[in-house]
Amino acid sequence: MTDFNIPASLLDENLPHSIRQMDLAEKERLARDIRQTIIQVVAKNGGHLAPSLGVVELTLALLSVFNPSRDHIIWDVGHQCYPWKLLTKRAKDFKTLRQFGGLSGFPKRSESPEFDRFGGGHASISISAGLGMAMARDLNDTDENIVSVIGDGALTGGMAFEALNQAGGLHKRMIVVLNDNEMSISRNVGALSQFLSRNLAHKRFLNFKDSTGNFLKSIPKIGETLYNIADKGEKSLKTLFTQGMIFEALGFNYIGPIDGNNLEELIRHLEIAKEAEKPILLHIRTKKGLGYPPAENNPSRFHRVPGFEPETGLVPTPKINAEQGPGFTKIFGASLCELASEDKKIIAVCAAMPDGTGLGEFRSRFPERFIDAGICEEHAVTFAAGMATRGLKPVVAIYSTFLQRAYDQIIHDVCLQNLPVVFCLDRAGLVGEDGASHHGVFDLTYLRSIPNMTVLAPRDEEDLPDCLYTALQLNSPVAIRYPAMPTHAKIAKHEGFKLLETGKGDMLIEAEQKDVCVLAVGHRVHPCKTAIKALPNNNISLFDARWISPVPEEQLKKLAAAYKGLVFVEENCRAGGFSSACLEFLADNDLLGACKILRIGLPDNTFAEHGPVEELRKAYGIDTDSLGKQFVNFADTIK
Amino acid sequence: MTDFNIPASLLDENLPHSIRQMDLAEKERLARDIRQTIIQVVAKNGGHLAPSLGVVELTLALLSVFNPSRDHIIWDVGHQCYPWKLLTKRAKDFKTLRQFGGLSGFPKRSESPEFDRFGGGHASISISAGLGMAMARDLNDTDENIVSVIGDGALTGGMAFEALNQAGGLHKRMIVVLNDNEMSISRNVGALSQFLSRNLAHKRFLNFKDSTGNFLKSIPKIGETLYNIADKGEKSLKTLFTQGMIFEALGFNYIGPIDGNNLEELIRHLEIAKEAEKPILLHIRTKKGLGYPPAENNPSRFHRVPGFEPETGLVPTPKINAEQGPGFTKIFGASLCELASEDKKIIAVCAAMPDGTGLGEFRSRFPERFIDAGICEEHAVTFAAGMATRGLKPVVAIYSTFLQRAYDQIIHDVCLQNLPVVFCLDRAGLVGEDGASHHGVFDLTYLRSIPNMTVLAPRDEEDLPDCLYTALQLNSPVAIRYPAMPTHAKIAKHEGFKLLETGKGDMLIEAEQKDVCVLAVGHRVHPCKTAIKALPNNNISLFDARWISPVPEEQLKKLAAAYKGLVFVEENCRAGGFSSACLEFLADNDLLGACKILRIGLPDNTFAEHGPVEELRKAYGIDTDSLGKQFVNFADTIK
Repeated sequence: MTDFNIPASLLDENLPHSIRQMDLAEKERLARDIRQTIIQVVAKNGGHLAPSLGVVELTLALLSVFNPSRDHIIWDVGHQCYPWKLLTKRAKDFKTLRQFGGLSGFPKRSESPEFDRFGGGHASISISAGLGMAMARDLNDTDENIVSVIGDGALTGGMAFEALNQAGGLHKRMIVVLNDNEMSISRNVGALSQFLSRNLAHKRFLNFKDSTGNFLKSIPKIGETLYNIADKGEKSLKTLFTQGMIFEALGFNYIGPIDGNNLEELIRHLEIAKEAEKPILLHIRTKKGLGYPPAENNPSRFHRVPGFEPETGLVPTPKINAEQGPGFTKIFGASLCELASEDKKIIAVCAAMPDGTGLGEFRSRFPERFIDAGICEEHAVTFAAGMATRGLKPVVAIYSTFLQRAYDQIIHDVCLQNLPVVFCLDRAGLVGEDGASHHGVFDLTYLRSIPNMTVLAPRDEEDLPDCLYTALQLNSPVAIRYPAMPTHAKIAKHEGFKLLETGKGDMLIEAEQKDVCVLAVGHRVHPCKTAIKALPNNNISLFDARWISPVPEEQLKKLAAAYKGLVFVEENCRAGGFSSACLEFLADNDLLGACKILRIGLPDNTFAEHGPVEELRKAYGIDTDSLGKQFVNFADTIK
Repeated sequence: MTDFNIPASLLDENLPHSIRQMDLAEKERLARDIRQTIIQVVAKNGGHLAPSLGVVELTLALLSVFNPSRDHIIWDVGHQCYPWKLLTKRAKDFKTLRQFGGLSGFPKRSESPEFDRFGGGHASISISAGLGMAMARDLNDTDENIVSVIGDGALTGGMAFEALNQAGGLHKRMIVVLNDNEMSISRNVGALSQFLSRNLAHKRFLNFKDSTGNFLKSIPKIGETLYNIADKGEKSLKTLFTQGMIFEALGFNYIGPIDGNNLEELIRHLEIAKEAEKPILLHIRTKKGLGYPPAENNPSRFHRVPGFEPETGLVPTPKINAEQGPGFTKIFGASLCELASEDKKIIAVCAAMPDGTGLGEFRSRFPERFIDAGICEEHAVTFAAGMATRGLKPVVAIYSTFLQRAYDQIIHDVCLQNLPVVFCLDRAGLVGEDGASHHGVFDLTYLRSIPNMTVLAPRDEEDLPDCLYTALQLNSPVAIRYPAMPTHAKIAKHEGFKLLETGKGDMLIEAEQKDVCVLAVGHRVHPCKTAIKALPNNNISLFDARWISPVPEEQLKKLAAAYKGLVFVEENCRAGGFSSACLEFLADNDLLGACKILRIGLPDNTFAEHGPVEELRKAYGIDTDSLGKQFVNFADTIK
C-alpha cells in the first residue's frame, strides 16, 4: 500500500456538498490536488490513469451543478471514476485503490450506496441504467436529475444506441454527457467517430453559413429548442448539423461540442441542460490524460497502467521471474503472426483492444487482415462468422469477460452454422485488480455447453501455439482460453507447430500408488505440479486435461477406473465448468461409484473480488499452497 | 403435410436465373403466384405470413438485378424468406415448410448452400454478416455484390448500429436495404422509428424547400453523391435531411424512401445502388401482409400465425385438450396483472413481444408500468437493473432464446449488483416449428452458474403463479422458465398466492420399493408422471425439483441415500443443466457412489431441428413414451 499523503483539501468532511458553494478558484485548486493524488496513487497501485485525468473538470462541474445525494450520476465503464471517488467521501481510503479489501477501481454500489448509483466495468451501459432510473423517478413522482456520462468509445457499443433510441422515444427527462476524447482504449474507430471528429466537421462546413440560418429557422422542432443555443456562435451553428443531427434523430436535444476541460464552460452548459424537460445530450471534448504530460502524449499506454515512476512517466517492464515466460498474450500475438505469414486466409479481429490482446505486431505486419471492430463484441463475432462463410479463417481475440457480450452470436451465428471461427479469450480466470466485473470465470461454462464448439485451455505459453495451430485446422468453432500473466513454466523456444489430438490430455506426473489423480486445466496445471512436487511423498498423479469440450474421454475412463480419488482443478466458476463436464461424462458411463471426487475452482455463490491476483487465488483456495493442502487432505480421506 | 399444388410457374427449372430475363408483366404474374402459394401453405402449416407477403416485390427485384449464385443476399431474421425459398429451387418442397424433416422457416445454409448465404432466426445480424462477406470479397479479390436486407424493427437492435458504424468506417462496398414497414413484431418503438415515420417527416419539412437546395449544394460530400438523386423530386429532397441524415452520419450514402412494393421502382433503385463504390442504404417502404386483406388489416396477428382458414382469414382457437390448461403464457400474464394490482412497484418489460409474452392485458391495465423496449434485450435488461436500484420490481419477460442476447448484462448489471430483477423466460425448451435458432435449451446452463441468481421452473400452470409470487419476494435476481404450450395438467382454479420455500421440491410419487427415483424439472414433470403411471408395476418414484439454483439440497441428499438409482429429466441441453447441478452437489457431498445415474435431456453435441414439438421430443427421447421406456430400462439395470 502506498504511503502517499492525501491533500487536506480532499479530506474535508463537507465534500462533496461544499463544492456547490466554492468559487472557481477554489475548484481549480481542488482540480490540481485531485490530479496530483491520482497520479501518485496510480503510480504505485496501477490503474486507469488517463481516463480519470481527463474528467477532473467534468466531475467538479457535475458536483457544482447537481446534488449527488439526491441526483444520480452514472459513469459508463467507470474507469474514469477516481476524481469522483476522491470527492465523494473516499479520499481517506484512496491509497487502497484496487488493493485486496480496498477501494474498487470502478463505481460500486456496495462501496458507496449514496454516491455510486450504478456499478461499472463493462461499456455502454450508463444510458440504459440512467433511463431505468428516470422511469423510476417518474413513477415514484420524485424529481431528481439523472446524468449518464458516456465516452465516445463506449458509444460504438450498440447497447448505447438502443438506450438512446428508447430514451428519445419515451421523452424522459435525463441528461447524457458525451465525453468525447476521440479515444476508445486505443484510438476510436467507426464511422460515427469519424463523423464526430472536429476536423471533419470543420472542413465540411467551412463555407457554410448563410444557408444554415434559414435552414434552422425552417424546422420547427430544432428551431425552437436549439436555435437559441446555435445562435450564440458560428461554431455551434456549424456543428449542429454534423454532431448534433444524429442525436436529434434519436429524439435528443443536442448541445455542444464544448470544451470539457473548461470548468466554467462546463458548469454553464450543465446548468442549461438541467433545465431541459426532455432528454438532452451535452457533447463535451476532453483530453485524455490531461495534466500529466506522459499520459497526454501517450493516452493509450496510460489508459490502464500497471504502475510507473511519477516523475518521469517511465513504466517499468514487469519484473518477470527468470523461470517465467513472456506471458500468454505476447506468445499468442507472435504465434498468430507466424501462422498468418503462411496462411493468407487468417484474419485477426479484436474489439477495441489491439494491444491488450497482443495483436499489435499483427496489425503492423498485416494491416489489411486486421480489424478493430471497436467496443462491439456482438457485431465483431457475427462479422467474423460472415467472413468464415467465405473461406477466411477469422481469429477473434476478446477478453473472456467481454466475450460474454456475444454469447448469443456465438450460439446463433457461429456454432449453429458450424463456422470455423477461432475465439482466443485472453484474461481468462481471475484478472486481479480490475476485479469482479473483469474476471473471466464463466467462459468454460458458457462455451462448453454449445454444440459444435470445441474448448481448450493451454497449460502454459509453450502449449498455446500448438493449441492455436490445432484450432485453425479443426474447421469448426473453437475457443482457447488463457490468462494474461506468465505461468510458472520455463518456456522452451518454440519450433514449428504440432497438431494436437482432439480430446487428449497429458499425464504429467504418474505416481506409483494409484490413490489420487489431480486433473487440471489451463494455467492451474503448473501450480498443481508445483504443489504436488512440494509434497513430502510423491504419491499424487497429475493429468493436464487441456480439452474442456470434449473432455479427454478415453483417458478419463482409465483414470476413473485406476484411481481411488480424482481432484478437478480449474480457474473458472465450479458451476458448469470443467469438473462438471467430467462428472457428466463419468455419470453417463457409470464410472462415478468407484472413486471419490474433489472439485476445486472459483465459488459458485459469490463474485470474486479485486486485488493482486495471487492474493485473490489465495482467498479462493486456488493458489499453489492452498492446492497442496487440499490435495493432502483429500488424499488422507482416501486411505 | 398440405396437399396444395404449387403453381407451374414456380416449378420452372430455370428459376431463379430466368427472372433476370423476364419482363415486368411476367414478374408480376410470378408475384401473384408466390402470394397465393404462401397463403395456402402457411394456412395449413403455420408460419410467418405477413413479413413474407410484404417482400414479394423486393425478392423479385433482388433476383432481377443480382445473380444469386454469385451475389450474396442476406435476409435479417429471415422470417420473410418464403418468396426467396420459392424462387431459389425450393418450390417443390415448399409444402414441407416448418415440418419435421422439411424446409426450415428461416434461411439455412445447410438447406441451400448456394442461395442461403447466412442463417436466420435472431434479429439485427444481416449487416454484420454482410460486412464480413464484403471484407472477404475484397481480400479474395473477387467482385460479387453484397446486399443485407434489414427491417426497421431489427434496426432497434444495437448490433445493427454497430455494423452500420463499422461498415461506414471501413467504406466497404455493400448495399443495405432498409425494409421499413413501421412494424417490429408489433408496432415498432423508439425514437428512430418515430423519426423514420413518414408523417413526422412530412410535417416537419412541409414548408422547407428553398433553403434546402442551397444547403445541399454547400456540403461537398452529400452534394456530390446525393444531389442528383435528391434533385429528382421534392419528396426525396425533403426526406434527405430526415431519414437520410442519420445514415449519412454513419458513413452510408442514402437513397429513399421509395415504394418497396413497386417492382419497377425497386429495380431502378437497386440498379443505382449496385453501381455505388461505397456503402449505400436503400430505404424502402413496404406493407406487411400485402395481398392478403386479413393480414394487411392485422399484420401483428399475421406476423406469425399457427394456421388459418385461407378464405376467411379466420385463425381458429388452438384445440386444447379438456385436460389441459390455457398455457403458461396466459397464466403468467394474468398472474402478473393480479400481483401488479396490489403492488405498484411491479413493472413489466418486454423486448418487442408484448403479446407473445402474455403482457397484452398488463399493457392495457397498467400502461404507465409497461415498457416495450423494442428488439434490444441488452438494453432492456440493464434498463430493468436501473429501475431496480430505485425500488421498483421489474419483471422482464423475454423468450429464453432471445435472453441469450443479454447474458452479459444479466451477469454484470443485475447479478453482480444483486438487484431484484425477475426474468420470465417464455418459450423455454423446444419451441417446435421455429426450430434450431428459437429453441430455449441453454437457459438452465447459462443462468444457474451466475452467482446470486435463483433459477426455477414451474411444472405446470398451477405452479407458475406461486413461482412468480415467490420470485418477487426474494429481493434478488430470479429467473423462471416455462414453455408456451399447455402442460398435460388439469389446472385447478388459482386462489391467492403461496410463498414457496427456496430449494424445496415436491415428492409427487413415492414408490414402496426404493429402487428408482425420477427427478424432473419444469414442464417435463407431468410427462414423467404420465409415463410412470403407465408402467405395469408402480415401482418408480417421482420428485419435482422445481429449483435449479439452488437445487433442493436436503431432499437431494435423502433421495441419493435412499434410492439405488436416480434419473434426471429436463428439457434443456444436458451439458451444464439441471442434472449437472445435481451431480455437482452430490459430488461435493460425497453422495455419488451409492446410486446409479441416468441423465435425460437434449443432446449436447447437436442443435435440435424444427418440426411439431411432440415430434421433436420423440426424436430426442423426451416424450412420454420414450421417457417411460428409458425408466424401465434403467430400472432393469438396478435390480
